[in-house]
Amino acid sequence: MIDAKYIHETVIQNENKIILLVVDGLGGIPSESSELTELQTAHTPNLDKLAQTSSCGLTLPVAPGITPGSGPGHLALFGYDPLKYYIGRGALEGLGIGIELLPGDLAARGNFCSLDPQGNLHDRRAGRIRTELSKPIVETLNSIKVPPCTTDVFQVQDYRFVLRMRGEELSEHIGETDPQQTGVAPLDCIALQPGGGPTANYVNKFTSSARELLNDQPIANMVLLRGWSKLPDLPSFPGTYKMRSSAIAAYPMYRGLATVAGMDIIPTGTTFKDEIETLYSNYKSSDFFFLHYKPADAAGEDGDFEAKVKTLEELDKFIPDILALNPSVFVIAGDHSTPAVLASHSWHPVPLMVHSKWTIGDRNNGFNEYDCRFGSLGTMEAKYLMSIVLAHAERLTKYGP
Amino acid sequence: MIDAKYIHETVIQNENKIILLVVDGLGGIPSESSELTELQTAHTPNLDKLAQTSSCGLTLPVAPGITPGSGPGHLALFGYDPLKYYIGRGALEGLGIGIELLPGDLAARGNFCSLDPQGNLHDRRAGRIRTELSKPIVETLNSIKVPPCTTDVFQVQDYRFVLRMRGEELSEHIGETDPQQTGVAPLDCIALQPGGGPTANYVNKFTSSARELLNDQPIANMVLLRGWSKLPDLPSFPGTYKMRSSAIAAYPMYRGLATVAGMDIIPTGTTFKDEIETLYSNYKSSDFFFLHYKPADAAGEDGDFEAKVKTLEELDKFIPDILALNPSVFVIAGDHSTPAVLASHSWHPVPLMVHSKWTIGDRNNGFNEYDCRFGSLGTMEAKYLMSIVLAHAERLTKYGP
Repeated sequence: MIDAKYIHETVIQNENKIILLVVDGLGGIPSESSELTELQTAHTPNLDKLAQTSSCGLTLPVAPGITPGSGPGHLALFGYDPLKYYIGRGALEGLGIGIELLPGDLAARGNFCSLDPQGNLHDRRAGRIRTELSKPIVETLNSIKVPPCTTDVFQVQDYRFVLRMRGEELSEHIGETDPQQTGVAPLDCIALQPGGGPTANYVNKFTSSARELLNDQPIANMVLLRGWSKLPDLPSFPGTYKMRSSAIAAYPMYRGLATVAGMDIIPTGTTFKDEIETLYSNYKSSDFFFLHYKPADAAGEDGDFEAKVKTLEELDKFIPDILALNPSVFVIAGDHSTPAVLASHSWHPVPLMVHSKWTIGDRNNGFNEYDCRFGSLGTMEAKYLMSIVLAHAERLTKYGP
Repeated sequence: MIDAKYIHETVIQNENKIILLVVDGLGGIPSESSELTELQTAHTPNLDKLAQTSSCGLTLPVAPGITPGSGPGHLALFGYDPLKYYIGRGALEGLGIGIELLPGDLAARGNFCSLDPQGNLHDRRAGRIRTELSKPIVETLNSIKVPPCTTDVFQVQDYRFVLRMRGEELSEHIGETDPQQTGVAPLDCIALQPGGGPTANYVNKFTSSARELLNDQPIANMVLLRGWSKLPDLPSFPGTYKMRSSAIAAYPMYRGLATVAGMDIIPTGTTFKDEIETLYSNYKSSDFFFLHYKPADAAGEDGDFEAKVKTLEELDKFIPDILALNPSVFVIAGDHSTPAVLASHSWHPVPLMVHSKWTIGDRNNGFNEYDCRFGSLGTMEAKYLMSIVLAHAERLTKYGP
């Protein structure tokens, strides 16, 4: 793990390059009809061939039975104990839309909601008001001033937005204003720990102003705020591992997660093909590359088994391009499983393969949940992956004399 | 683990004898040409037959990806958490040459080095000066007096020696004098923690005297000192496990490691055959025997695949002799892997088998990295091995009512 004594005492530098490809939602479970998982169903000759000369296994992202969100799933792959380091909902939502979050900034996830004439909640999501309609309301909220803080409201989608507060000594230990039920008034914000009082007052001034400004709105006439959080202070990924470390990710949330770890972000386009081109044109500039592949998770979340199979087949076509760069270590991992059968993230351990000149295969037949179970890496906690990766890159010396 | 509540509360005594055979550097990885490991290549009918009636698995000496030194590798097999209990370089070097280290003694690893006329380091290893030439210089250093401490210098090999300081309240929290680069002067020793000042002063007096005494030497005209350490205070192995415990090891370092754990050392010869004879003639006198087999590690370190295969075949011939003693539990483990392909210690989990009347086999075909992966013991942290061993010896009762 990134904060373990044995990492700090053994990391060394060399020229060996590492590519970590994170396939979002990689793992699956068998469909009832075929009794095969998405990976087993997909025609992935390149992945299967690579597995035959790799060390394979399964990663457990957080703990047995625990379904991770994107934050813990990625932090663990980067070597952070996901039970120790945590990115709150507001901050992650901010990372997800790519807004700037500086140390000390406080972020909340916001909903537009509907109050009845008595001021009680009628609809916690304001009829799931569409983005076109909520956009001008976001602009209205940006006229609110809560000195000495700066408040900025950023549209997410439909009825959802992010509130960012910037100021001195803001506290994340304040209450949510969403009562999580209808028929009652939104909650006043209160301090949950000593020192939270001033921040709670700023929030209450903000929500009072919002209520006045939105009073005449037909549906979205109030806001609810929750998930107060700042970015956590993480040990630096490039600093600890002593590698120039870059992220290439088409989606802002994954760039955001890499930023929190201290990686450099290389601008890229909106597709995985763009990411590969970016990798090629920047390959000299870094030692470690985090590549992110989103489509598998999206199809899994949609519960579309065939679509997820296709995303894996699409990914397979890019594997030769990555191997052609001849990285010292090429890792394919997932942040969590997203079985199409469940149409959501799940707790299932995730297929993993590590390829280097020190791996010649585990006598497995392909890259899938079944074969990986018998791989030489076993089922390992994801937070240990980077130690294994660094070892294969000869970037760890002996621990202890 | 040796300091776990569940061990202290459940250990009981009986007459059942245990033999733990540690094959140094046991594990390997496949050679690219044959795709077989050293153990898979070696003709080891006795080990393979024994595996068929044993519980097999793999041990993880320290943590995934971490390559252990001999100290952590052995401490873990004895049941000590290698991340909690640590033997520093100086103390381990002292154990390695078999010198007496008492509680409170401070040891450093020393190098002879060459200074240029300006007093800057020209060669950190004094031209790797040969033992014959450095021996009289060691004698010269033994004339240094740093009252109230006693200092003793012990030859290791070539340009290497051990400095042992004996005195009241010596601190190991002092700086190294080796700047780890040439073109600069050796460092003064400084205190790294409060209370280290007096010790640092003794060291500086020693190095000043050394410089004066060695001034006329053509090559080895100064010393560098690093790895300051005392023996750690470990829970007693025989005391905790309530067993008369003995070590039979041809090499001094492994006798030293056993001494630190509190085992009795039974004098033996320089070969494994000597160790077996010693085991036979002392079998009544102890409950637990730690036997150490060195040649596999030495051949692995040399990068000689065929030689390592031969050491395993040699070992195999002794297995019937050990089994003829009919120990209640016979364990074969390794302190770490030393794949000939890597020519060094490595991070790979190490084959393990535990044989007792309570094991009838795991349906595996032999004793090697591949079959052990599918054994009933799984891949376990080495620090838990002794619990498994004691269980098979019926030396642990139920934990909790």
